[in-house]
Formats: sequence, structure tokens, C-alpha cells
Amino acid sequence: MGKTFLLAPDSFKESMTAKEVCVAMEAGIKRAIPDAECIHVPMADGGEGTVQSLVDATGGTLVTKEVTGPLHTPVLAQYGILGDGKTAVIEMASASGIHHVNKETKNPLITTTFGTGELIRECIERGITDIILGIGGSATNDGGTGMAAALGYKFLDKDGNELLFGGGYLNELNTIDCSHVIPQLKNVHILVASDVTNPLCGENGASVVFGPQKGATPEMIQILDRNLRHYANKVKEYLGIDIVDTAGAGAAGGLGAGLLAFTHSTMKKGIDIVIEYTNLKEKLKAVDYCFTGEGGIDFQTKFGKAPYGVSQAAKSVNRDIKVIALAGCIGQDVEVLYEEGFDAIFGIVPGAASIDTLLAQGKENLARTAESIARLLK
Amino acid sequence: MGKTFLLAPDSFKESMTAKEVCVAMEAGIKRAIPDAECIHVPMADGGEGTVQSLVDATGGTLVTKEVTGPLHTPVLAQYGILGDGKTAVIEMASASGIHHVNKETKNPLITTTFGTGELIRECIERGITDIILGIGGSATNDGGTGMAAALGYKFLDKDGNELLFGGGYLNELNTIDCSHVIPQLKNVHILVASDVTNPLCGENGASVVFGPQKGATPEMIQILDRNLRHYANKVKEYLGIDIVDTAGAGAAGGLGAGLLAFTHSTMKKGIDIVIEYTNLKEKLKAVDYCFTGEGGIDFQTKFGKAPYGVSQAAKSVNRDIKVIALAGCIGQDVEVLYEEGFDAIFGIVPGAASIDTLLAQGKENLARTAESIARLLK
Repeated sequence: MGKTFLLAPDSFKESMTAKEVCVAMEAGIKRAIPDAECIHVPMADGGEGTVQSLVDATGGTLVTKEVTGPLHTPVLAQYGILGDGKTAVIEMASASGIHHVNKETKNPLITTTFGTGELIRECIERGITDIILGIGGSATNDGGTGMAAALGYKFLDKDGNELLFGGGYLNELNTIDCSHVIPQLKNVHILVASDVTNPLCGENGASVVFGPQKGATPEMIQILDRNLRHYANKVKEYLGIDIVDTAGAGAAGGLGAGLLAFTHSTMKKGIDIVIEYTNLKEKLKAVDYCFTGEGGIDFQTKFGKAPYGVSQAAKSVNRDIKVIALAGCIGQDVEVLYEEGFDAIFGIVPGAASIDTLLAQGKENLARTAESIARLLK
Repeated sequence: MGKTFLLAPDSFKESMTAKEVCVAMEAGIKRAIPDAECIHVPMADGGEGTVQSLVDATGGTLVTKEVTGPLHTPVLAQYGILGDGKTAVIEMASASGIHHVNKETKNPLITTTFGTGELIRECIERGITDIILGIGGSATNDGGTGMAAALGYKFLDKDGNELLFGGGYLNELNTIDCSHVIPQLKNVHILVASDVTNPLCGENGASVVFGPQKGATPEMIQILDRNLRHYANKVKEYLGIDIVDTAGAGAAGGLGAGLLAFTHSTMKKGIDIVIEYTNLKEKLKAVDYCFTGEGGIDFQTKFGKAPYGVSQAAKSVNRDIKVIALAGCIGQDVEVLYEEGFDAIFGIVPGAASIDTLLAQGKENLARTAESIARLLK
């Protein structure tokens, strides 16, 4: 009787989407066990690849749209409509991510989340009422004001003019005008995928902790943090919502705060959302083996990355399911994962090689390793 | 009940001896299965590492001796006395190998096997009657005349003077004088480990096929081949032995021929000798799993390399023993080994890295991979 393998890897960054990883794993397994049944559940952790994986896992569609990038110039962004036709999935980084700026242009005083708001707005205008929004990898520190502005909120200075984009101008915020917000927004729920629990302001806040990687100098950090605090006060004044100390408000340069203030949203760990929307636990019920993996695996994987979520889900369904991880790079202290539901962890690299070579031959290396593992299991 | 693992790897060249590979494998296995029984059988294929592995496998001793190198200058060579105390194991390369010459100095017209003969002579003078001689990796093309000279044979020109060392002078050979050969030689048997079946002369002979890698130019090859043919005629004339067309006579620049002519010797595949002297098949009888491996594994492994011999031996003892190979480098068409008794083949490399880094961290990479495999098997 054939064995059943559930294949639930994350993407291998710069090499394969999670779906492509599933296909390569199945190719290897079938070489060893031709009648093996392989169930593909491409995974993600709420970060890069989440749209692709959830679209692939649910048989949804990808949509490309030109929006306003973090530097106010147009960028092409993608979002997904899941197979159910009524849920959208957005990665804020696609519109407002750090990859849209470079060493010279990165400047958290001016970068905006407006493009992320445009994606949300387009989904809403299509009739979508449920949005999954991954907020990792932002280039911004605007407290989500750009996002809110795209939905109709107006951030005005004392003369009644709209503020320029960017966290650097929030000190001029005098009034928040909610009278032009698109009416459908009140019927929309946004499920925010974020593993960040930082508050908006202060020494653990968005500006201090994440500002530097977005290009903030020590002087900029002071300005940004002070401005976000002023902004939080105005939000309190106009909307009656306290965002300054809420856990997660500091995610994505304060986009977390903006979502809390201006939308109906719930924040959840990315991997938990992906597990829920891929129906992973139900699919795990009749399997013998669960393969997972990611580009690089190490002790940090246990802090909420996709393979960790998969291993926990598998063991919660059935302690006897063997969870086997494959990775392009086995990193530090990977052994700690053996205490987290992982049964075995294998690298796929065949020998000394440059990263470019390995990225190019990822599929064959993955298939070959999956084949060897399956040969041991048959 | 604990499982039994037989560990029979070759060395990982430039990284670990076969014994060190066994130790690292056991460390990994025991992390997964603390009560696993691990039997160490360090392997070799008759080439580099054979002395070390047979000494390690039998609890023997290594002996270092200064002998005449291929370029006539002193070199330090090693040989082994096996645990039985009466069998010696010699690698000709230790005394007369290609690693003793370089791009500038390599010259098969003058390189000699005299040092190999000195090692044989020392063993004989210690009372050894059985010698295992691995003859891979030679720098020489002297037909084994240097080796024979060290044992007392005299190769004389028409004026009765001994020839200079090297295949380049064999055209001057007039007489072979056997009257000064050390008397114990007739009681000694030499088991020659060689996978080479080439004849001494002609287009498949030692000079044409192996001369170039020892530095022979096209002109030198002509000279060397003609000289070896003249030498074979003289051997026929003085000893009544035909060495020109015998399979294996062309091994190691004709050392194969010299051994056939001047000693009691038998030629056998290296891996078969190692399997016999390590008592591998007997040790395989009660094991569940057999781990093997080598630095680089690919389709060529099936042409008599150590892991191939191990896989064949394991399956001949019991088809149910799972044979699992670990390697530093997984090469071309490794899948063909699945038809040769191998059950699974794993690389140990954790990610993109230079060869130097990988050679340095071989033990940990090996242990980690062995651990993961054992975790699947428990």
C-alpha cells in the first residue's frame, strides 16, 4: 500500500517558490516510491512568499497592480485572491518594501505606506471583505498614515493642508479628517500577519528598533520617534484609540498602529494564519510523513518560521507523523529543533559550491535528497 | 533493544581517515540512538589510505622509514604491520608516489621504485612473510626494476655495470643477475592490490596510458614503451617469464610486471583484499544497518571503490541490511548506485561553502548527517 507524504515547505528564497519545492520533493519521493501519494501544501510565515504560497495552496490567482512605491514613484505590486474568491492576501513589502529602496535612496523620513493602502483599497473595491496582510520587510516609518490616506483618511496640518508623505512630517499633524473614508471599509476585516510585538514608540518602538535598517540616522530616529508619539496623541484625540503602547503597533514602521487605528484588524502570527488558511491540520490527518523545509534552517526557525509551525501542527495532529526538514543551508544549533517536533533535518547541497550555483540547481538537489530519504522510509 | 550499525567508510581525502569517519558517524548515531551498537571497520580500496585503514581495522601499528624517493633523494615513507603481527601492508605511493614529485621535477625517464623495494626488504628482514602491496599513485615507469634492485636483483649493461635508475635507461639492459637476491624472498608472498588490467607495453600499456600523468612527453612515451619491451624480452630470456601481455603488468609504470617477474605475487582488486583482511563479511552478519562513504561519491564508485565493495558485501551477507552512504561531495549520476546495493546516499555539506571550510568541518558535518539518518531509522 502506498504511503502518504504531506509536503509543506516554505519557499527557498531566491531559488524556488514553496510550490516548486513541493514539486521537486514529489519528484524525488516518486523515484523511490512510485505509488507514494503526495499532498502539496506550500507554506509561508507571513513574510516574503506568503501571497504566492497561499495562492498556490488554495488554487487562487495573482493580481498585479501599479501603485505608489515607498519613494512616491510607481512600482508594480502583486496581491492574491485565494481560491475561495472572497479572501485577498497582500504583502505590504510588495508595495512598500525595503527592496524598493537602495543604500542611496532609503530614507524613513519620507517613505510611505500609501501603496499598501492602494492595494487594500483595490481589494475592497472588488468586493473583498477579508484581507490577510503580511507586514514584514517595510521601508517605511510613517505609522501607517500613507495606508490610511489611500483609504480616504486625511492627515491635515494647522492650515488644513494634507501632510506630505512620510514619518518626517507627522510633527505637523493637526487634524485627522475621517469624513472621506471609503464607506465599504467598515465591513472589511484585516487579518494582520506579524510576529513583531514591539510598541509604537520608545526604546522598543518602531523607530529605535527598526529605523536603522531602513536608513535612519540617530538624529532621524529621534525625530521619527517623537513624531510617532505626536501622531499617537492625535489618534487618541480624534479616534479615541490608544496605539502608543499596544503590542505589535510598532510593526512595519508603525503600520501595525495604523491598522489598529483605522481598520477593523486582528494581529496574528504569520505561520498560524497560513496554517489556518491552508487547512493544514485537516490535511495532516491521514499522512505517514510530513516533509517541510526552507532555504536556511537554524535554531531561529523555532521562533515562528514556517517549518516550525508545520512541525507543531503535525505533532498536534498525530505524534507518529515523522516530520522531516530539508534545507539549502543548515545553520547554527539546528539540533534544538529536535526538541520542537522535528524528526530529521537534511541539507540538500551536494558539495563545495558557490551560492549562485546552488540557487540554480536547487530543484535537482532537493529531488535527490528527497529520493534518498524516501528510500530509507520505504 | 539497541540497533547495530556497521560503519565501513573509506577515508575522506584531505579531511578524515576512515577511522575518524567511523568515530564521527558513531558520535552522530549515538546522539539519536544512545544504545546503538557501532562496529568500526575503516575501509580502503587499495589506494591512498589503505595502510592506515588496515592498521586501524586490525589494531596494527604504523612504521615510518626513510627510503629512496622516486627522484633518488630520501623521503619518509610509512608502512603497516597488521594486528596479526605477520602481515605487512605497504602503499607503493608512500615511497615512490606522484606526490613526491612536482610539475618541474616529474620525469618518468629517471623516477624509480627503489624505495618501494626498500620497504619490502625491511618487512622481509623483520620476518614478515605476507605483504599486501597497494600500487596506485606511482610517479614511476621503471617496470619495477628499482623495486627488484632493492631486493638484490642486478640489472647490468653490456659492460657489467648496474644501470642508472629509471625507465629511460632500460634500453641498456643486457643481463639480469639473480645471484644476490635476498634469500628470504622466496618464502614471501606479495598480495598486490591493483584494479588496473593494462598490459606492460603497446597502446594500452603503462607508458602510453599512464605516462602522460607522470610527465612523459610524446617522445618520452616512445622511449619508455620501447625500453619496457626490451626489458620484457630480457626478463623472458633470464627468468623465463612472459610479462609483456599479462593483464595488470602495466600497473604502476610496470611495477606490476616487476612483481610478477621477481616475486611470488598475486594480483587482486584492492577492495577485495581490504574486505578479506578486515573480515568485513563476518562482521556484517548481525547488523541492522551498514554505513559507508567516501570524500566524493559518483557513478565511478561502482568501478571498485570502497563503498561499492561494502555495499556488495553487505547485500551478499543479508539483503535486508540497509546500506547508507555519506559523502562530502555527491557527484554525477550517483543514482546508478541504487542498482548496486546502495539504499540511500546523503551529502554532509550544510550549505554554500569553500572546499577548505568543508574539509575543516568534516567531522561535525558527518556527525550531524549521521544523526539525522539515525533519527529516521529509530
